[in-house]
Parts: sequence; C-alpha cells; structure tokens
Amino acid sequence: MTQPLWIYDTTLRDGAQREGLSLSLDDKLRIARQLDSLGIPFIEGGWPGANPKDVQFFWKLQEQPLVHSEVVAFCSTRRPNSHAEEDDNLKAILSAGTRWVTLFGKSWDLHVTEGLQTTLTENLAMIEDTIKFFRSQGRRVIYDAEHWFDGYKANPNYALETLKTAAKAGAEWLVFCDTNGGTLPHEITQIVREVIQAFKGLETPFPLQFGIHTHNDSGTAVGNAIAAVLEGVNMVQGTINGYGERCGNANLCTLIPNLQLKLGYNCIGDEAIKKLTEVSRFVSEVANLAPDDHAPFVGLSAFSHKGGIHVSAVQKNPLTYEHLPPETIGNQRRIVVSDQAGLSNVLAKARTFGIDLDRNNPTSRKILQQLKDLENQGYQFEAAEASFDLLMREALGTRKTFFTLKGFQVHCDKSSDEICHALATVKVTIKGQDILEAAEGNGPVSALDAALRKALMNFYPMIAEFQLRDYKVRILDGGSGTSAKTRVLVESSNGQQRWTTVGVSTNIIDASYQAVVEGLEYGLLLQQQEQSVSIVTVS
Amino acid sequence: MTQPLWIYDTTLRDGAQREGLSLSLDDKLRIARQLDSLGIPFIEGGWPGANPKDVQFFWKLQEQPLVHSEVVAFCSTRRPNSHAEEDDNLKAILSAGTRWVTLFGKSWDLHVTEGLQTTLTENLAMIEDTIKFFRSQGRRVIYDAEHWFDGYKANPNYALETLKTAAKAGAEWLVFCDTNGGTLPHEITQIVREVIQAFKGLETPFPLQFGIHTHNDSGTAVGNAIAAVLEGVNMVQGTINGYGERCGNANLCTLIPNLQLKLGYNCIGDEAIKKLTEVSRFVSEVANLAPDDHAPFVGLSAFSHKGGIHVSAVQKNPLTYEHLPPETIGNQRRIVVSDQAGLSNVLAKARTFGIDLDRNNPTSRKILQQLKDLENQGYQFEAAEASFDLLMREALGTRKTFFTLKGFQVHCDKSSDEICHALATVKVTIKGQDILEAAEGNGPVSALDAALRKALMNFYPMIAEFQLRDYKVRILDGGSGTSAKTRVLVESSNGQQRWTTVGVSTNIIDASYQAVVEGLEYGLLLQQQEQSVSIVTVS
Repeated sequence: MTQPLWIYDTTLRDGAQREGLSLSLDDKLRIARQLDSLGIPFIEGGWPGANPKDVQFFWKLQEQPLVHSEVVAFCSTRRPNSHAEEDDNLKAILSAGTRWVTLFGKSWDLHVTEGLQTTLTENLAMIEDTIKFFRSQGRRVIYDAEHWFDGYKANPNYALETLKTAAKAGAEWLVFCDTNGGTLPHEITQIVREVIQAFKGLETPFPLQFGIHTHNDSGTAVGNAIAAVLEGVNMVQGTINGYGERCGNANLCTLIPNLQLKLGYNCIGDEAIKKLTEVSRFVSEVANLAPDDHAPFVGLSAFSHKGGIHVSAVQKNPLTYEHLPPETIGNQRRIVVSDQAGLSNVLAKARTFGIDLDRNNPTSRKILQQLKDLENQGYQFEAAEASFDLLMREALGTRKTFFTLKGFQVHCDKSSDEICHALATVKVTIKGQDILEAAEGNGPVSALDAALRKALMNFYPMIAEFQLRDYKVRILDGGSGTSAKTRVLVESSNGQQRWTTVGVSTNIIDASYQAVVEGLEYGLLLQQQEQSVSIVTVS
Repeated sequence: MTQPLWIYDTTLRDGAQREGLSLSLDDKLRIARQLDSLGIPFIEGGWPGANPKDVQFFWKLQEQPLVHSEVVAFCSTRRPNSHAEEDDNLKAILSAGTRWVTLFGKSWDLHVTEGLQTTLTENLAMIEDTIKFFRSQGRRVIYDAEHWFDGYKANPNYALETLKTAAKAGAEWLVFCDTNGGTLPHEITQIVREVIQAFKGLETPFPLQFGIHTHNDSGTAVGNAIAAVLEGVNMVQGTINGYGERCGNANLCTLIPNLQLKLGYNCIGDEAIKKLTEVSRFVSEVANLAPDDHAPFVGLSAFSHKGGIHVSAVQKNPLTYEHLPPETIGNQRRIVVSDQAGLSNVLAKARTFGIDLDRNNPTSRKILQQLKDLENQGYQFEAAEASFDLLMREALGTRKTFFTLKGFQVHCDKSSDEICHALATVKVTIKGQDILEAAEGNGPVSALDAALRKALMNFYPMIAEFQLRDYKVRILDGGSGTSAKTRVLVESSNGQQRWTTVGVSTNIIDASYQAVVEGLEYGLLLQQQEQSVSIVTVS
C-alpha cells in the first residue's frame, strides 16, 4: 500500500479553540511555516471575518506564500434567507485569497431547527448557494459536515441529503465531522461504510473524495480517524499535539506515524516524518504550553525504559520492547537509569557545534555529569543550544572571558495607581576596568538589559546590533506558589544569526539576568568567530 | 444490554511505572480505598517480593480488608529450570494473602528465546507449573499473556499453545496484553475474534473468560480495549488517569463511561460512576501530578464552552454540543469567558457566581465592554474566574473594600556568584490605618507576597490559611524581548476552595502583584460569604 492520504491541519483554527491557548499573528505565521516545511498538504489558517487577526494572517501569506502547503480559509454557510453574493462574511473569505475554502454546514436536523431556527429546506439551499457562490469565484471547496454522526443517527435521510446537495453543488471533498466527539470507532466504521456506499453512482461535477474530522471527547479521536481511513476516507483532519476545544482534536503527531509507518499510507514522506518530534515541541513552545511528555510517538517518555532486564533486552533487540524505532519520527530512546545513552547524545550534540569530543575523554563524562546536574536543577538545553555550547567550552577550558559580572541591583517602585518604575544598576569588569552603570526600563528585566548594554557598549560596540527577539518564562514547580523555580529562555539575534540561552532560579530576575548575560556573551563569541574566519579568508 | 463487565485496576502496579510518579505506602492505601468505594471489582496492588513496599501494602489490607474490591497480587512465572514450590518469589505472593493472583507469562517466542534465554517447551512448563502451584494453594488465577498481539503475529500456533496451557492448568481468565502498545483497533478485533474462536470446545477445569490490557503507545489504548470487548472479552484492565509507563495504560476514567454509559455494560453502577471525576482528581492529587484538564469525561475542560452562538445553543439544549450530560460522571458544564464572548456568555457566567444579570441592563453591556478592553490589554479570564467575579462586582458597585493599596517597593541584589536577595515593602490602608511592612523572599514575588500577608494578618487572621497553589507566567508579545507584556495567573486555596486571579503588566513584578492581591481579596470575600451563609443557617 502506498496510497496517498491527505493530511489537513487545523491547529491554527480548531486547535486554537483550546482553553488557555492563545496565538498571536506572529505565532500563527511561525507555526504555518513549520507545517509547510513538514509538507502538510492543507493548512486551515482560520476564519477570516470572524476574527481580525485571521484576516491579517491570510494577507501576510499572500505577501509571502507557503512553499508546499495549501492554506485554506474556513467559514460557515450563508445566513438563512439571504443571498450568498450579499453576505459580508463570505466576501471576507474571498479577500483571504486562498485557492481552497472549507465550508461547514449543518447535517443534524435538530441543529437546523433549534440552532439556526430555520427550515430543513432552507438549510439545503444555504449549502447549495454558498458552494455555488465560491465555485463562481473560482474557489475549490471542502465541505465539512458538522455533527455528521449525530445527525446521521437522528435522521439518516436528511443527513445524506445535505451531503448530496454539497456534492452536486461542486464540493470536491465531503468531510465527516464528529463535532461533539461522542462517536466510538465501531460506529464510525459502520456509518462511513454505509455513507460511502450511498454515494456509489451519484453524478457529481467532480470525482468525490471523503474526509474525517474527529474530536477526543470519548478518548478515541485517533482510533475513529483510523477506522474511517480503513473504510476508504482519504483526508484526515487533526491538530498538532491534539490541541482543540474541550478534550482536543485528533492528534496529528499520533495519526501520521500510525497511518504512514504502520498502515503504509503516503502522508508526508519518510524524511519529513523524522521532523515530527521537533515540530510537536516547536508548536508547544510557541503556544507556551508544557509539552505532554507521555504523548505517543513524540513525547519525551514515549521511548523511555527503566529497570535492568528491560533495558538490557531493549539494547539487545529494540523490537522486544518498542513498537517502532524512535528515530523514524525523530524521537530518541531514553534509558532512564544508565548514562550510556546520555553520553552519545552529548557527543552528537557537541558535533553539531563543531566540537569533536572523544567518548573516552574524561571531559566528555564531565560535561555529561554537569549537564545532568543542571537538568536536575531545571535547566533545559534542548531549546538553548547557545548555553549548551558555552557549557562545553567551559568544560574544555576554551570559553573566552569577554566580561566579568560583579553584581546587580534592581529596584521596582509603585505608588497607588501609578505606573511601576524599574531601575537597575550593574557592576562589570571589562578588560581590567570596573564599570558601574544604571538604567531604567518598563520592567526589571528590561532595566537590567539596558544597564548591561550601557556597560559593555564602549568596549564592544557591535552590541548595538544585538536584539532580544523573544523572552519566555516557565514556572517549573508551580505547586510551590510564588517560591517556585523559574526557567527563562531568551532568544537573541545579530541580524544574521539567532541563538537561545537559558537561566534558572527561584528568583525570576536572577533567571532572566543569567539568560540575558549569556545571550550577550554568545553574540560576542559569534562575532569573534566570524572575524577570525574572515581573516583566514583574506590571508 | 446489561452484561457485566469486570473492571481491573492496575494503577498501583502498572500505573506506578509512569516516569515521575512515585507512591508511598500510605498513598497506595488511600488510592486503594477510593477504588474500593467506587466498586472496582479487581485492584492489582503490586508485586510482593519484587518490592518491599508492596509486601507491606498487602499486609495492611489483611489487617483492614477492602469492602467491595478483590485485591490481587501480581507476579511472573517461576524461573526457568526450577521448581515452583521452591521459588521464593512465589512464596512471597502467597504471603500477600489474596484470593486472586495475576500471573504473567511469555507469549512471544522471541521473548522466550532471547529474553528468558530458554526453550519454548520450558516456557510452557513454567506457565503450567506456576498455575498448578497456585491452584494447589487455593488461589484463583488470572493469566496475563504478555506481548500477546506481537507474539500471535509472529507465531500464532505457539502463542495459542501458551494460552491453552494456562487454561488447562487452571487459570480462570486469559488476558490479552498489548505490552508494547503498538497494536491498532482493527488488528485487536481480528486477533481477539480468531483466538476466542480457537477456544471453542476446549475442555478446561473452569469456564473460561477473557480480558484485555492495553497501552497507549499508538494513542488507541481506549479504542483497543473497546474493540476487544465488542468481540466478547469481559475483563478490562487499565489505570486511573491512564497513568503508566511510556505513554500510559488504557485510561479507566475514559473507558468506564464509554462502556457503561454508551455501550450499556454494567461496570460499577450508576451511582458509583458519578464519583468518577472526584476519584480521578483525588488520584492525581495523591500522585502529586497536575490533573489533565483536557482528559475525556473527567477533565476540567471536558464540558467547557466558549463562543457566543455555541453557548446560547448549549443552554437551550445541552444535547446539541455535549455527547453526554456532564453530571452523569460527576463533572460540570463550564461557560468560558473569552474575547469571543457574547453577552450570553457573560450572563451565564454571572449566574454561576450567583449574580443575576439582566440582558437589557446597561451594566451587563458595561461588563462585556470592560471584559473586551481588558482582554485587548492581555488579560484573560478563561482561567481566572475569581478576577472575573471581582470585575462584575466592581461594575455592579458591590465590590467590598477589604484594604487599599498605597504602593510597594521591591529590591533585588546580587553580588558576583552569591545568591540573589529579594526584599519588598508594601504600604496598605486597612480599616482607616496605614500599615507599612517589609519582608524578604527567595524571589521578588515571594517577598511581596510575604510583606502583604504581614500587613493584612492582624486584621484578617484567616489569611494564615490561604495558600498560593500555583503560579503561571506567560509572556504575551515575546517578540518585544524583555520589554514584553507579562500575564500572571495565581491559583490560591483556603483548604476547601480554589480560585484563580490574573494580572497583566510590562513589569512582571507588577503583574504578579496584581494577581497576588486579588487572590488575597477574593479569599477574604469567600470567607465572608461563608460566614454570612452560616449566620443565615443559624437564625
């Protein structure tokens, strides 16, 4: 089997409905470009018109289009008793400038009469008119049949009529949506089988294809999607990390490996699927949600082994305790007790920085030990490779001293309803000179950052080009209240390169300070390497 | 259908394998008594002999037995080339004093030859001897066929032989274990069907019954268990909250409602199932793991609704957007307030706080407008219901003044490699008196929190009972670097109730301060309401 199966990602629309998740325009664009690099065929970008942020998202993609993926605009049918051509919501969809539009309509008679408060006939007209309108404007149409399974159980004839109406009006895909997430796999199997059968021989303007869109309210979103695929559906809708309203949508990070690696469908290619773990973690990072360590395939614990016999068995023959090789989806086997696996990680990582460590070199073990100690304290180097590079240089004795920190003071002050003032002083030794500088900021960390830059600027004028691109805070042990440990990630840039550093402390200012300082240091290091490279090139 | 289905809980054994989960003896006993009160028929308590804590667990239950549940001891077959009667591991099982023993054995030829390094014939002898030994000691036996599905795929005849050996030796249940979690629902259906068929007509000492034990490595543990049940299996093994090694076991909090409320099996009774949400949260509390808000059926968000049309539809007819009434499993419908909120959300939410707003009252529109303004500034009330309640009271003119803030100062200080010191002073007016207090902390926010409590304590001694349970920080526009806006969520508790408040500022200390202050204020408000209620009750 190498049948193609079309993956349709709705992280940016249905996924963003997850309680506690809120994506900025920039977040949405960054996620879209990651999904594009993965080669996901369809990316649902949002509902332009319902949300000003979504309008801008589509405009930005018109300026700089995606490479591999089709971005899709999502909307509902026209309002009851109106004309599609006059519907402002539909005009907003056209201005999104996508080739494809996903239109959702009502399948369940109850939703038509109670929800929309209109007649069953008018609902059919709404579906037909809206699709014909989009077709007349050159758009290709995916039709999402909302509440499909509940609707079909309640009134199969009417439900089928809505789908047939959509197909005849020019929809190319009919998508069965389990909107409330209440359906179980065996029901999916039976209903999808009956429905696809009912379409045999129907004359439609386009060859019909079917899709599935499931939610996890019964804990079976992934199983439900697979059940539909086995009945002949060839589009699967879901979200990265299963984000979505209530209990979430079908998790594409689970579905794609199941469909591609176990069932042999062609979803995103064997090379792209190796990026799945990375993309999963990237999206949780951008969404600022803690990654689910126990997520199938891509979770940190998905291929963890503890206990002696088990571990040696895995090492003899991974097949005995692993359903799949972790590297096929870019994840790693983790041996929880032994540091053997850790060492090869460190060696591999060092290599990415151009540092060739020897397995038998005691420094390698020293770095590994330091890394473990720091990770126990809450540091995380997965996303902070610049800090990891500095750590290795420290252990190797090759870390250059650009400046020595002597201390800082931060002061915040607020009276009644006034704005909160922040003032910082820093003391730094640079090239033998003690420098004391002070600066204000709109918060304690920006004040500290400003004071540090003032101190360093005369010695390292290139610092003027460094920018703090991103600043993220995660509370590590939230249960300890305001005494909790804080991890700060700072992303810096010099215009050409970007790098991330990490700091950890129970004091959020101290943690931020560590990350900001290493960010500046690493920028200076990069600058210096570039200069030495350019000297080599010149000579 | 009201067929009985036997639920078998292994939270205390397989669940405890979860990375990051560690249960004390007392934790295990508390969880066992909760499961007992739920009426779970079988509770696997551990592997006595492999673990001293587990030995004590069974002894404690001999002193004070469970009321409804059978506690079961878990162990493996005897060692190769030895005698069951002389095996110390098996003696330890007898001393646990249970009526039932669950014995696991190898089904997969690869595991016999490579893992155990013995012959296929010796493995059969190990199964037979061990079961006969337990039978001779008056124990009833459940046989867990480890790696069943992989074993059956690799060598169906041998796999079947292991099971037939177990049945003939006196096992009453044969349990199909998907140990690596790699099997998909349609494979379960097919294999279970074939296997049960293969046992038709086999003569065994007891009427045979079948069970299923699944893991979530493919994201289908629940679907897999259901598939087996539909083929005639009538014991389901799983864990509370799906805890377990790697990606976890089948989640009983998902399975029980699916099996009992959707498929009509008789698992734990209609009254007991209403305690499921409570038990789920209890177990996560004891395990000291954050509850999964997005868990099916029992999660905080499982019946949450946001978006205007949606909310008004749910209120008209819950069936339209809920696959099941939340109260059937002891959960609650939640109306979430967010920037997609319409007036009906605000009205519905106000009602949950006992505030009856009128749709035509200008105050309702004023609250909605304020909500939108604040959300534009970065406030988010989805998770901060206490701050939303205070906002409504403010608009209605019923917010009580417990104290008035006059200002604060925070000072952090670090020299060289020393620890970072934090000191805060606050000025508050309480009942006409100006109070100035100072405190230290291991970070600026804990120092502020301590100073505030010191100031309020003499006037409101109940503040001593308030705890900060959780502290979350989100950088809203990370792209602005250290000048970014910060949103802080603080969860407080008074021992009985929990509430969350929010603060937003470009200054992280100011944002934290807002949330901490509202947290204290709301605690005082709750205390006061309780007192006034108890006064009413007394009079």
